[in-house]
Amino acid sequence: MVILTLNCGSSSAKYQVYDWDAKDVLAVGIVEKVTIGGSFISHKVKGKEEYTASHDCPTHTDAVDLIIKTLTDPKVGVISDMNVIKAVGHRVLHGGDKFIKSVIVDDKAMAAFNEVKDLGPLHNPANIMGIEAAKKVLPNVPHCAVMDTAWHQTMPPASFLYAVPYEWYEKYSVRKYGFHSTSFLYVAKRAAVLLGKDPFKTNLIIAHLGNGASINAVKDGCSFDTSMGITPLEGLIMGTRSGDADMAMPFYVMRKTGMSAAEMESALNKKSGLLGITGKYADRRDIQKAKLDGDKRAELAQDMEAHRVKKYIGGYQAILGRVDALVFTAGVGEFAFFMREKILQGLEGVGIVYDPKKNEMAHTRNTETIISKPESKIPIYIIPTDEELVMTEDAYALMAGTYDVHTKFAYSFQKKEYVNKGRAEGLKEELAKHPELKSIIAEPK
Amino acid sequence: MVILTLNCGSSSAKYQVYDWDAKDVLAVGIVEKVTIGGSFISHKVKGKEEYTASHDCPTHTDAVDLIIKTLTDPKVGVISDMNVIKAVGHRVLHGGDKFIKSVIVDDKAMAAFNEVKDLGPLHNPANIMGIEAAKKVLPNVPHCAVMDTAWHQTMPPASFLYAVPYEWYEKYSVRKYGFHSTSFLYVAKRAAVLLGKDPFKTNLIIAHLGNGASINAVKDGCSFDTSMGITPLEGLIMGTRSGDADMAMPFYVMRKTGMSAAEMESALNKKSGLLGITGKYADRRDIQKAKLDGDKRAELAQDMEAHRVKKYIGGYQAILGRVDALVFTAGVGEFAFFMREKILQGLEGVGIVYDPKKNEMAHTRNTETIISKPESKIPIYIIPTDEELVMTEDAYALMAGTYDVHTKFAYSFQKKEYVNKGRAEGLKEELAKHPELKSIIAEPK
Repeated sequence: MVILTLNCGSSSAKYQVYDWDAKDVLAVGIVEKVTIGGSFISHKVKGKEEYTASHDCPTHTDAVDLIIKTLTDPKVGVISDMNVIKAVGHRVLHGGDKFIKSVIVDDKAMAAFNEVKDLGPLHNPANIMGIEAAKKVLPNVPHCAVMDTAWHQTMPPASFLYAVPYEWYEKYSVRKYGFHSTSFLYVAKRAAVLLGKDPFKTNLIIAHLGNGASINAVKDGCSFDTSMGITPLEGLIMGTRSGDADMAMPFYVMRKTGMSAAEMESALNKKSGLLGITGKYADRRDIQKAKLDGDKRAELAQDMEAHRVKKYIGGYQAILGRVDALVFTAGVGEFAFFMREKILQGLEGVGIVYDPKKNEMAHTRNTETIISKPESKIPIYIIPTDEELVMTEDAYALMAGTYDVHTKFAYSFQKKEYVNKGRAEGLKEELAKHPELKSIIAEPK
Repeated sequence: MVILTLNCGSSSAKYQVYDWDAKDVLAVGIVEKVTIGGSFISHKVKGKEEYTASHDCPTHTDAVDLIIKTLTDPKVGVISDMNVIKAVGHRVLHGGDKFIKSVIVDDKAMAAFNEVKDLGPLHNPANIMGIEAAKKVLPNVPHCAVMDTAWHQTMPPASFLYAVPYEWYEKYSVRKYGFHSTSFLYVAKRAAVLLGKDPFKTNLIIAHLGNGASINAVKDGCSFDTSMGITPLEGLIMGTRSGDADMAMPFYVMRKTGMSAAEMESALNKKSGLLGITGKYADRRDIQKAKLDGDKRAELAQDMEAHRVKKYIGGYQAILGRVDALVFTAGVGEFAFFMREKILQGLEGVGIVYDPKKNEMAHTRNTETIISKPESKIPIYIIPTDEELVMTEDAYALMAGTYDVHTKFAYSFQKKEYVNKGRAEGLKEELAKHPELKSIIAEPK
């Protein structure tokens, strides 16, 4: 039995195929340039070279068709026929406050997605198109929606409300929602396992640092506050998003430049963040390279990003009272040791003491590591995230009728003996090359 | 010799008259409803009842005339004639990045104020009018401008830049400026005195909580980061200002309601904050009363305000590394023990332990108090601010030619033996009524 997960953007469709019985990923891939011409699929199967093929996809339905065709292809495919797929998990950016957990997509759910469409205008219409397309291609299996906002629905009003006219909340659902739900859920559960603690007695600060980035204060195992807001624009400095700034600033710039509201929103989302500061780079690897080559604006961008993350870490320590671990995850959090270093430097005063050597060693998706010094009051973990696994398990459990909200449901990865097979294989190879990696592997307590 | 300080708003003119030789305040007052009809003056002289009188002031010049007339009035006045006034200190909201300290207002300075007028459209035009009016009425004395932004010009780029297109900074001076300069300067210098430390080796977190509110991270005696931004809208939740939120939020609400950019800016500045949440109250005393009467929205407003301040305190601990003291100041910070309590509750984990009884005792402008428990890693002080004294001393020193930037200049209140005469008298009376107050008075170390 196989579970398919799909993540449809306005011009892309990402997928993963998971073998439920073998507990292993069979294939991952993406169809790019959907609806805009020149579409192609990149398809990766474990142990094989990546396969790419051009195929025009004027609609999302064509993209889903292409995915199924590729998955069942005699040469590059991984399943015999599409009936092997027993459930589909769809990533949905914005569930508003209508969803506290994943759901099977029925007419009621579709209506609810359409209601909150305005809250996620850049993503939700594509998510909805993706679901409709997949339902057309795979009409006989349950389609499940996994919301990027659901995990944060446990935040208290003091965290999620903005100090604006209250009727904006009542009439237009204006509030902080937060995103990266599946990642925070996965990492929070894994951190509890590593700490050997009851997840619902665990307080955490989780920094999900990727091109998009947000940070989560987890109290007693539930989301308590987070940096993203009503949209993913708020909070940390990201690849191209500004994060926090004075709300009067965009209006001032609009008066100065004559920019429209739409142009300003686009500039704040797509031309700001690290790209805005450096004028050239949104990718942290490019920025690090430029900095080492003497680019002062690249260095400034790193300083600004780290300064912002530091403030959130400290702020969340203050509201949590006790913090059992600080955790880094996602592309930058897992790999960019130079950014972790900048963030962690000087935090000794707030009980966070990293080990520079361990930090530099830690750059792998294949294992969970610990990079703090023994004297650190708060241990620092790096936990590679696995958003697809959360989607897969939600979809399976919804199909099986065993699913419930995370406070009443246990994921496979919450077991002490849980092993991600693909990663475990990769780790063997890595340890052969870098035996010192062993010294920072975090084992469940 | 007398120094006059003036703080002109769009429809008001506040003043204080300071006797330089006696080191004492002679009178304070305000002209209200300037330019809008029905103007009147409220004038307070130590030991006398407040005097009020109606007098139409169609222009700011009329208001300054009225102030001088009142100050020299045989019955209610405090000076023989206006020639006793040797210098005037003017409060100016926004100095942009053109001013790192107070200046004598010459043509060059006036040109600079006009250049940065767009950055403070709600205040700077009135400040400029006030200076022009006072120059007309008192043409033969130096007029000094004391900027609300100058203190924060020591912030590093990682603190003051926004992650937006860099050319907005280069072309339009888009950056964080910060405000409440005179208050933070005064409190930072006083805190160093109380701590018995070199001010330039002192790290502080200062919460200036009034109707407007901001918080300052002070590193080695200089402003290092602050919560207000390019305008006073950013940061903490204030009486009617929202403080921080997702910059995409105003645009979403504009699309939903059809509000214009100007209406949105006005709503965020004048109808948000505590007023927005409660729907009724901007004043913390009203909110506390309503909460005690069972108003759930009033309680929510307090929870939200405290939650926001906690996050800034923790955030600034993280970027400062070491914090020598946490200090509260301004109306709410000095008097609203119930708000301090909400803010301080649960901060034990970050080394801040307040004493609930001491906190409740501390509600006076007449002395500096300490409300932390002995085991608190970070002591908590309440230091009544004195913005007018900073303005007075700046104006005097500019006139005398002894003034310089605060890192090279010592204020009278930096002396261990400094005593505010008016407050000292008030303290005697208070101690007679509340002898227990003595136990929390902070003495210089």
